[in-house]
Amino acid sequence: MKNIFIIGVGLIGGSFALDIKKQNSECIIYGIDKSETHLDEAKQLGVIDKKAKLEDLGKADMVIVAIPVDATLNVLPKVLDAISDNTIVFDTGSTKEDICLKVKHHPKRRNYLAAHPIAGTEYSGPSSAIHGLYKNKTNIICEVEETAFKLQEKALKLFSELGMRIRYMNPKAHDKHIAYVSHLSHISSFMLGKTVIDKEKNERDIFDMAGSGFESTVRLAKSSPAMWTPIFQQNKTNVIETLDEYINNLKHFKKLMEDGDFEAVFKEMETTNHIKDILNGIQ
Amino acid sequence: MKNIFIIGVGLIGGSFALDIKKQNSECIIYGIDKSETHLDEAKQLGVIDKKAKLEDLGKADMVIVAIPVDATLNVLPKVLDAISDNTIVFDTGSTKEDICLKVKHHPKRRNYLAAHPIAGTEYSGPSSAIHGLYKNKTNIICEVEETAFKLQEKALKLFSELGMRIRYMNPKAHDKHIAYVSHLSHISSFMLGKTVIDKEKNERDIFDMAGSGFESTVRLAKSSPAMWTPIFQQNKTNVIETLDEYINNLKHFKKLMEDGDFEAVFKEMETTNHIKDILNGIQ
Repeated sequence: MKNIFIIGVGLIGGSFALDIKKQNSECIIYGIDKSETHLDEAKQLGVIDKKAKLEDLGKADMVIVAIPVDATLNVLPKVLDAISDNTIVFDTGSTKEDICLKVKHHPKRRNYLAAHPIAGTEYSGPSSAIHGLYKNKTNIICEVEETAFKLQEKALKLFSELGMRIRYMNPKAHDKHIAYVSHLSHISSFMLGKTVIDKEKNERDIFDMAGSGFESTVRLAKSSPAMWTPIFQQNKTNVIETLDEYINNLKHFKKLMEDGDFEAVFKEMETTNHIKDILNGIQ
Repeated sequence: MKNIFIIGVGLIGGSFALDIKKQNSECIIYGIDKSETHLDEAKQLGVIDKKAKLEDLGKADMVIVAIPVDATLNVLPKVLDAISDNTIVFDTGSTKEDICLKVKHHPKRRNYLAAHPIAGTEYSGPSSAIHGLYKNKTNIICEVEETAFKLQEKALKLFSELGMRIRYMNPKAHDKHIAYVSHLSHISSFMLGKTVIDKEKNERDIFDMAGSGFESTVRLAKSSPAMWTPIFQQNKTNVIETLDEYINNLKHFKKLMEDGDFEAVFKEMETTNHIKDILNGIQ
């Protein structure tokens, strides 16, 4: 693999670029981005070697599509149109059902691998790209059987070199589960931030009283709206379902408090404490 | 100051003990705890020098009350009964109104300083005590004018040595603001954990799909129910108010999604992104 094309030179694409270059200094990293400023920044930072355009994709060995999921729906078919028979393309989006449907009947469907590396930070843009972002992270691959075996291998080799563990899932299950463990927590965090900001006009006071607990809970409210709006749009049904359940749980907790049933409040928390073991991977 | 008594040798009390001892190796740290096991553990870990009882408080130079806030209502008057005229006592509880009311007319009121060091982790017990927990953290002091000046000085000297910054507030304002920046985020986190656990019976799947974002948002759901239940009980009115606002914000977000108004969804997040600057302390 020599010519690697990264479409979207932000946190996700840029971090792939950095690790691929480190792993294999002989490959050339081409960057494609709708923002010329981002492209220049990525080049200056050494995240990419060269700027490129979709028309150049004919010479690509691998293409990584790391742009917001609405743009992926648009761009991925064009990418598949432009590549050679031996090019492997994968995306990194946080929704999988719509995108798999979109390219289901594309003549180059077997050149595409639907992937979702579960990694990131709350930052965005080329300057947020970091080495080692994918180490020990999970990469969820959907409809693996729809990708040509030899091309799968190329992508899996890269994921393995980057230290990722692979889980296979169908797109429907992916979108349903990820709504719970990722999409919902972004909304809970954004709305927590909103609630506090709305109330506390004197911001200095928030900052002074907020401890590390608040900071950690509200961290995801720093995330990029441009990335997250299309995710919520594409995964609307699942996300609304998680929101319903979350709101009901909050209402129930409030009701227990209003009723003065603090034994039940205690039990609610005690049962959920169990999340410790889950997060530790202990069963 | 020679004889320091720590009532409650867990995360908060134990971390005070460790830093005080480091700062002044000549002082003797006495531990008092309703759990004999915790006391033994604290002694074994070197968190305290000696085990003690409330009856020994007559020789105390400083007493730190670091127990759940319901227990503080009970224990603090007894502590004030037992100390000498020159002893400074402070608590560390996350609610301040009830406790200040409770000792308002105590003959030793001027020996007490109402404090809330905003520091902690999601862990508890003597083994969770750590050095440097209070460095660069905010300590909110309420009704400072009710504490004898010479005794205030002793406590403030300690806080300063431990690297804390001090903010003065009245107990009502403290309880109202802290409901937003601390109590609410614990509930949002617990209910997020509950929502995901309820849904995902196959826990291995949660763990595999959960990224660092989920982990950070749900971190506070590891907190101790024994500590948090009485906090919610004492700060019931304020906490219910924050919950109402939080639930309304979530419902509004859901409504926007149901209506397919993703421009408004984008704006909701964009406005809240501003939390970045607040958390960075930039205005």
